[in-house]
Amino acid sequence: MKATAKAYSNIAFIKYWGKTDEYLRLPANSSVSMNLDSLYTTTTVEFSRNLKSDEITLDGTKLDNGPGRISTHLDRVRALAGIDTRARVSTQNNFPASTGLASSASGFAALTLAAAKAAELNLSEKELSILARLGSGSACRSIPAGFVEWSKGGSSESSHAVSLFGPDHWNIADAVAVVSRGAKTTGSTAGQKLAASSPFFRARLESVGKKIDNIKKYLAEKDFTAFGELLESEALELHAIALTSTPALIYWQPETLALIKLVQQWRNRGLECYFTIDAGPNVHIFTEGKNRDALVAKLKEIDGVENVIANRPGKGAESIDTHLF
Amino acid sequence: MKATAKAYSNIAFIKYWGKTDEYLRLPANSSVSMNLDSLYTTTTVEFSRNLKSDEITLDGTKLDNGPGRISTHLDRVRALAGIDTRARVSTQNNFPASTGLASSASGFAALTLAAAKAAELNLSEKELSILARLGSGSACRSIPAGFVEWSKGGSSESSHAVSLFGPDHWNIADAVAVVSRGAKTTGSTAGQKLAASSPFFRARLESVGKKIDNIKKYLAEKDFTAFGELLESEALELHAIALTSTPALIYWQPETLALIKLVQQWRNRGLECYFTIDAGPNVHIFTEGKNRDALVAKLKEIDGVENVIANRPGKGAESIDTHLF
Repeated sequence: MKATAKAYSNIAFIKYWGKTDEYLRLPANSSVSMNLDSLYTTTTVEFSRNLKSDEITLDGTKLDNGPGRISTHLDRVRALAGIDTRARVSTQNNFPASTGLASSASGFAALTLAAAKAAELNLSEKELSILARLGSGSACRSIPAGFVEWSKGGSSESSHAVSLFGPDHWNIADAVAVVSRGAKTTGSTAGQKLAASSPFFRARLESVGKKIDNIKKYLAEKDFTAFGELLESEALELHAIALTSTPALIYWQPETLALIKLVQQWRNRGLECYFTIDAGPNVHIFTEGKNRDALVAKLKEIDGVENVIANRPGKGAESIDTHLF
Repeated sequence: MKATAKAYSNIAFIKYWGKTDEYLRLPANSSVSMNLDSLYTTTTVEFSRNLKSDEITLDGTKLDNGPGRISTHLDRVRALAGIDTRARVSTQNNFPASTGLASSASGFAALTLAAAKAAELNLSEKELSILARLGSGSACRSIPAGFVEWSKGGSSESSHAVSLFGPDHWNIADAVAVVSRGAKTTGSTAGQKLAASSPFFRARLESVGKKIDNIKKYLAEKDFTAFGELLESEALELHAIALTSTPALIYWQPETLALIKLVQQWRNRGLECYFTIDAGPNVHIFTEGKNRDALVAKLKEIDGVENVIANRPGKGAESIDTHLF
């Protein structure tokens, strides 16, 4: 009744923003993402009859504010397994939580896989993705490997992610520039709820299907320029929706904008790179594998960039043999 | 055949962005603005039979790149007056041109009035506003006094500005924070042409009429909080349209975003102020008259703010007795 799993964070090329069902976390639109091999969560779950309540340790610190999102997620696994045993959960991110690095995606993916294994459930990738989605929407995309599509579906059973291409399909890199004025003022769960308050949200939903088709085409063709241009326009569209929500969500910091301008400048000077930005101030900068080191070196020189994390396409969530620990 | 006029720049509360007729400069939507008493252009026009071509001096520098927008505008006045005499034009801004401080608004308003007077045309305010609009759209709003509405109209004759309230109606101030990384990369004329490429432009046009009604109501009631909240959401909407145009228009600089965040912070701490931003990096910050000096003092301490220009509601365009010069 004990298992360990590792799952990678992911960055969306076409964003998940807005839900049609808050409880089931059904998204307003499909999304496409890539797993990030340098940003991951490792989680161990042990169901034990000796426990009176779930015991959760996050990055070495025991959480004791009662049943929360993690216990609620364990309840889903217990319901599927027909058990009511409490669990000891130990989870570690290899990056700081709540810096906009999507720790909830890798976190809920790793928790889902570890808990399912510990409960001796034999779930398919599809079932794991659906289960992870119930914990945190974008976590469903961290179950399959490499380049991933989350089809919005029309029900809980049909809304899950699949791998479009494995991590070795295309040698591109995502250098994440972590902006020092970190912590978001509005988390993405709260922000998503405001999406529909934007007068532009409906128009976005009308055009996002075409974007999904296009990004899949560019991924298949490995057309980096077309991919990059769509990546940027989609990121700006997400932030246009956020800026026009009520209340307005301004996720950018001055450093975010400085990085956007630098990316444009570097590109004009021959280093082909493109940005995308999630609901936070950090900037993800994509380049082809051959330019990765040059890009990272440039980013490390920028004032206001606290850390640069270079990623290649990551694997899917995986069980870890605990005998190794 | 010589006259001098002075006209004030203006800042739009509800923005002019996108045209339905490029040549006639008919706007896609109505707009509402305030004249700015500290930002003005003074222009002298003299028609003279001794001239072979128009002679134009801008801030002391003679322009000699052939007939341009100013000569084209003089042609309109000549056509109305039935003359073909060339003109000597001398124009001075009390602020640097092309810093996003709307020099074309005050410039074409002053040129229109001075040229019409010099040509001995006896035009009504409405006729002057229409004529100024043909030179530069927002210039039509610098003809009437104080708080101004430009009704989009459906033809050249019906698209002009009128004063909603005189400058003494409401004691509010606009502190313009001029951002040092100045000059725009895309001028507003070029930017406006891209408005319709935003997938959100149609949705904007559907809702802007309601905004016009609301801002007029808040101006009438002098409801500063409601006014300020609408001011900000409209500014963010303009920039959301710009960000989602193809190509994307990113008018903000890092300092722009720093100022946005400061305005929110100052407001939370009790200094009630709200921002608006035109197609450029400068930030216009509105506060009630009583808080003007406190706001200006704070702005002057900010790194990256090159200059702070405090404005009260300005008069309309006016003839100047040249004997005074």
